Amino acid sequence: MDFASFIGIISGISLIVAAIFMGGGVDSFINLPGMMIVFGGTLAATLTTFQMKDVFSAIKAAAFVFSEEKKDPNDMVSTMVELCTLTRRQGIVALSKLDVESDFLRKACNLIADGTKEDLMRDTLNIEIESMKQRHYIIQDIFKKMALYAPSFGMMGTLIGLIQMLNQMSNPETVGPAMAVALLTTFYGMLLSTLLFNPIAGKLRARTLLEVISLEIVFEGAISILQDNNPLMVYEKLSSYIPAKLRRPMQQRMMTGRNIG
Amino acid sequence: MDFASFIGIISGISLIVAAIFMGGGVDSFINLPGMMIVFGGTLAATLTTFQMKDVFSAIKAAAFVFSEEKKDPNDMVSTMVELCTLTRRQGIVALSKLDVESDFLRKACNLIADGTKEDLMRDTLNIEIESMKQRHYIIQDIFKKMALYAPSFGMMGTLIGLIQMLNQMSNPETVGPAMAVALLTTFYGMLLSTLLFNPIAGKLRARTLLEVISLEIVFEGAISILQDNNPLMVYEKLSSYIPAKLRRPMQQRMMTGRNIG
Amino acid sequence: MDFASFIGIISGISLIVAAIFMGGGVDSFINLPGMMIVFGGTLAATLTTFQMKDVFSAIKAAAFVFSEEKKDPNDMVSTMVELCTLTRRQGIVALSKLDVESDFLRKACNLIADGTKEDLMRDTLNIEIESMKQRHYIIQDIFKKMALYAPSFGMMGTLIGLIQMLNQMSNPETVGPAMAVALLTTFYGMLLSTLLFNPIAGKLRARTLLEVISLEIVFEGAISILQDNNPLMVYEKLSSYIPAKLRRPMQQRMMTGRNIG
Amino acid sequence: MDFASFIGIISGISLIVAAIFMGGGVDSFINLPGMMIVFGGTLAATLTTFQMKDVFSAIKAAAFVFSEEKKDPNDMVSTMVELCTLTRRQGIVALSKLDVESDFLRKACNLIADGTKEDLMRDTLNIEIESMKQRHYIIQDIFKKMALYAPSFGMMGTLIGLIQMLNQMSNPETVGPAMAVALLTTFYGMLLSTLLFNPIAGKLRARTLLEVISLEIVFEGAISILQDNNPLMVYEKLSSYIPAKLRRPMQQRMMTGRNIG
Amino acid sequence: MDFASFIGIISGISLIVAAIFMGGGVDSFINLPGMMIVFGGTLAATLTTFQMKDVFSAIKAAAFVFSEEKKDPNDMVSTMVELCTLTRRQGIVALSKLDVESDFLRKACNLIADGTKEDLMRDTLNIEIESMKQRHYIIQDIFKKMALYAPSFGMMGTLIGLIQMLNQMSNPETVGPAMAVALLTTFYGMLLSTLLFNPIAGKLRARTLLEVISLEIVFEGAISILQDNNPLMVYEKLSSYIPAKLRRPMQQRMMTGRNIG
Repeated sequence: MDFASFIGIISGISLIVAAIFMGGGVDSFINLPGMMIVFGGTLAATLTTFQMKDVFSAIKAAAFVFSEEKKDPNDMVSTMVELCTLTRRQGIVALSKLDVESDFLRKACNLIADGTKEDLMRDTLNIEIESMKQRHYIIQDIFKKMALYAPSFGMMGTLIGLIQMLNQMSNPETVGPAMAVALLTTFYGMLLSTLLFNPIAGKLRARTLLEVISLEIVFEGAISILQDNNPLMVYEKLSSYIPAKLRRPMQQRMMTGRNIG
Repeated sequence: MDFASFIGIISGISLIVAAIFMGGGVDSFINLPGMMIVFGGTLAATLTTFQMKDVFSAIKAAAFVFSEEKKDPNDMVSTMVELCTLTRRQGIVALSKLDVESDFLRKACNLIADGTKEDLMRDTLNIEIESMKQRHYIIQDIFKKMALYAPSFGMMGTLIGLIQMLNQMSNPETVGPAMAVALLTTFYGMLLSTLLFNPIAGKLRARTLLEVISLEIVFEGAISILQDNNPLMVYEKLSSYIPAKLRRPMQQRMMTGRNIG
Repeated sequence: MDFASFIGIISGISLIVAAIFMGGGVDSFINLPGMMIVFGGTLAATLTTFQMKDVFSAIKAAAFVFSEEKKDPNDMVSTMVELCTLTRRQGIVALSKLDVESDFLRKACNLIADGTKEDLMRDTLNIEIESMKQRHYIIQDIFKKMALYAPSFGMMGTLIGLIQMLNQMSNPETVGPAMAVALLTTFYGMLLSTLLFNPIAGKLRARTLLEVISLEIVFEGAISILQDNNPLMVYEKLSSYIPAKLRRPMQQRMMTGRNIG
Repeated sequence: MDFASFIGIISGISLIVAAIFMGGGVDSFINLPGMMIVFGGTLAATLTTFQMKDVFSAIKAAAFVFSEEKKDPNDMVSTMVELCTLTRRQGIVALSKLDVESDFLRKACNLIADGTKEDLMRDTLNIEIESMKQRHYIIQDIFKKMALYAPSFGMMGTLIGLIQMLNQMSNPETVGPAMAVALLTTFYGMLLSTLLFNPIAGKLRARTLLEVISLEIVFEGAISILQDNNPLMVYEKLSSYIPAKLRRPMQQRMMTGRNIG
Repeated sequence: MDFASFIGIISGISLIVAAIFMGGGVDSFINLPGMMIVFGGTLAATLTTFQMKDVFSAIKAAAFVFSEEKKDPNDMVSTMVELCTLTRRQGIVALSKLDVESDFLRKACNLIADGTKEDLMRDTLNIEIESMKQRHYIIQDIFKKMALYAPSFGMMGTLIGLIQMLNQMSNPETVGPAMAVALLTTFYGMLLSTLLFNPIAGKLRARTLLEVISLEIVFEGAISILQDNNPLMVYEKLSSYIPAKLRRPMQQRMMTGRNIG
């Protein structure tokens, strides 16, 4: 569970609900047709804007964003340094027998073991990273667009309410409550945009940045192994991705390449 | 038929119409002069902004966007791997006899068969891709600008209505309905922008991204054929454009180059 | 005459005027002081923002934008292919005797005829293209800034009117008309921005894109001539700038280089 | 004196003042506390945003922007061509004895005379240009941020006025004038932003563009001198920075290198 | 203590408080539930958007931004020139014994002393600089997002207040004060955004720019040392990062490399 997101969403909704309760009943803030216009309209415009499979991926990603998944870049640095040590001892063919979890790392290992030339390997791995970035970007973009559409549908709901109210202004006593109902959709739109869609887009971007760093460590490490750099240099280069304070010192263990597999 | 767009447009309009019906008659939401200002004005400003042939292309593209056209990048990867196998067996001249559908692929094949140097081929194919991107971008830009112009004309319509109402404020009873009419154009402008123009621009961008990936697979594949890389390497490189889960494994069939033409 | 711009401007203004007439007299929409604030203020802020000579260039460019000037990139491609054929037959010195209209093409021809090295020629022609782009960009920027300033001055006019009205609210009957007058400047500002300044900026950008393509065809063609590529390859490379459907096939005539001069 | 800025500021203020006078006294538009909130608040937020020395530089630059300083790029082109002629006759050491005004040109001359390698010279001069650009960009950014802060403080002033008015609504007669006073700060904020801060940021950008062209002419000229290009080629390359119509033809005088020093 | 920020924040708050006192009591501007919605909501949305450790870093950075920390780039230039002199006299191994404060400079020295190749050193130091930039950018982004969220929650608070007021409009006398309270949250949101979050984001960016210049001086200096450039050239290159007026002349002392350690 991503603790920050959990606290953020819960406390944000609590604050809004508390503010509503302090000023009177919560009844006047619930309006089903208004919710349908804002939420349904946003979803409708989003489906029109994107491809259906991307919208499904986005919904899955939104659920995923709140599940904590610790990925310490230090681990990836250690792994690459160990792989470097391993190849220096047992040759590059050793990489083809390894059982690694990450698709990207496995591809890099196979390419090295197959004796791929540096240029081709750079191209291949770069295409992987860029394609991944672009796919993630589309998912973030879906939530960014939803954050734009929601307030628009909120305002459209308010306009519909106002126009209906102005046409039936015979009874001045109903003007207040009618206008209150009209304003509700604007409120819904802003709430969805500010407390849900924008934050999800932001969190997804943070995830992408982390994942890209991880892939770049593999990329630069693989190039270094191909160039037969020594493990110390590989460690110096790859640890540069990590802030100095959080860097794990190079362990002797790494130099002997024992804990892979 | 693009299913997502279809559902999106239909459900979006249904939601708005339902909301209008629930609050009274639909009559007070139909105002022909208002529609003319918003839709006509948007079209007028768009014609002034762009070249007429680009506007026509945009209208055609908008119709096209809702017709499903499945292009699986996996097919293009298979094709390029097969072409690679073919040239290894029969020489690059074999490419000149192939009957391929895509203009871009045919051009790439001809260039290889003519023995073009790598630099010149990179330049030529890059110009194709960049020119295509720019043309598509202009079409998307037309809908983005329409999404900006529509709310502006909506607000201008409202201002015209308000000014006329304020000048004839002798009868207070007509103020409400007059203002309702004035607000209608703002509603039209937002509806067009949020439910039509913005989503079309987004869907066109998604199409362009897909098409660019397809062209890049051809581009990188053609370069690899020219460099005489082996089919396995070509497969590894080109399949990087596709997310790992959706990648089709390299088929034996590809290696024998049987199903082209 | 650029037909799209003509239709756009005329129909846009007609729509607005028609909407005004339908709701009453046109008198209440004409207010000289309001026009002065919006148009004069926008011009004043623009003069402060840019250099006077750039503002004059912008005014000239705005007039120019509505005059049709057909430049088919196919012509430029043909010309470059013919020049290539010519130099293959008569040597590069032949280029110095040609009488060409375009400044940029003449410069490219002279540089080739003078035996300039490829690097220096790339630098020289690139500087031409980039400088041209930057100058055009400044002109477009002037209209983009005017499109921002006009609504601001419109709102300032409305604020002045509102403040004066609120200070003299002794007679409630004059409130309506006074507010109508105040709103007029907001209307003027939006009209100028949406129907004039923004579209002109857009049309100028479209012109620049077309002109840049033309210059890039000359640039790439000149490099190819210097590299002594054969005319067929030059045609393949340069025609990539043009969408496949609009490409003119390579004519035999081009290969013989007869119609230059 | 920069004539355009002078006319712009004077006429802009005149228009606003005239519009105020036409609608009544100017008294109701002067409100010292309101001015303090908008101008003082903008300055306070700007000081918090930037470093104090940068704010001082910005104030100096704002004064400087209205003083005309004619820098014709043609002069710089002539100078570089003459320097090229000079080095061809007297050797690169001749450059070290020249007495040139511009810091950047002097540095370039010294680097050439010291026999610096091309790579190092490119790096050194590029760092100069990029650092200059960044410093200028910060100054422009200060005025852009002021143009954002001023309307925000204007709206805050209006909100303060409205809240105070709404709490003391016992006497309905004072509502009008109180609201007029509240709206004043919004007016001040827009006026400062639209007529002062935004135009100054724009004018500073125009200055930077001009100065960068001048530095780039020196940069490209110095590289050409180092590469021992002939003066005619240097002229062709450097004059590309200037629009064809404004280009001064290469003078014989330049070829003999007489008027330096 | 950063003097500009101190003056800015204090004078900004003073101006607002003074304006409030001049128009009546300060009581009507304090509303605890409103503050909770705006400040708490902004914090909640921020926690949902970013990773918790980044939010903590941002809070630390905000405190840090007001503490003056003089870093004169001239010092870094002097240090690099001295290191260059030192290596010329005592060889590159001398760098490994130095006791330097900056992590980045120490890493550069160690890499040189270890005889790292130029390519690998460029890659390693570039990764450091880019990673640092990205981390700083995320911190700035947190305050930029807070500056966007705060006015949104302000408007949501106002909408909640308006809706409650419109539903209880039985007593017209309470309308004024109720609306005043509703507007308060909009005021809070703008105040936080304009006087706190935006300026902090700006100040952090200014800090990053300064720090990047410092790292780039080390980077370029280290490359020069590796290329065995002479100290004078190194001084010429590195001093280009500093505006000509502020440049400290190269001291004789530097040439002898006495004051390191």
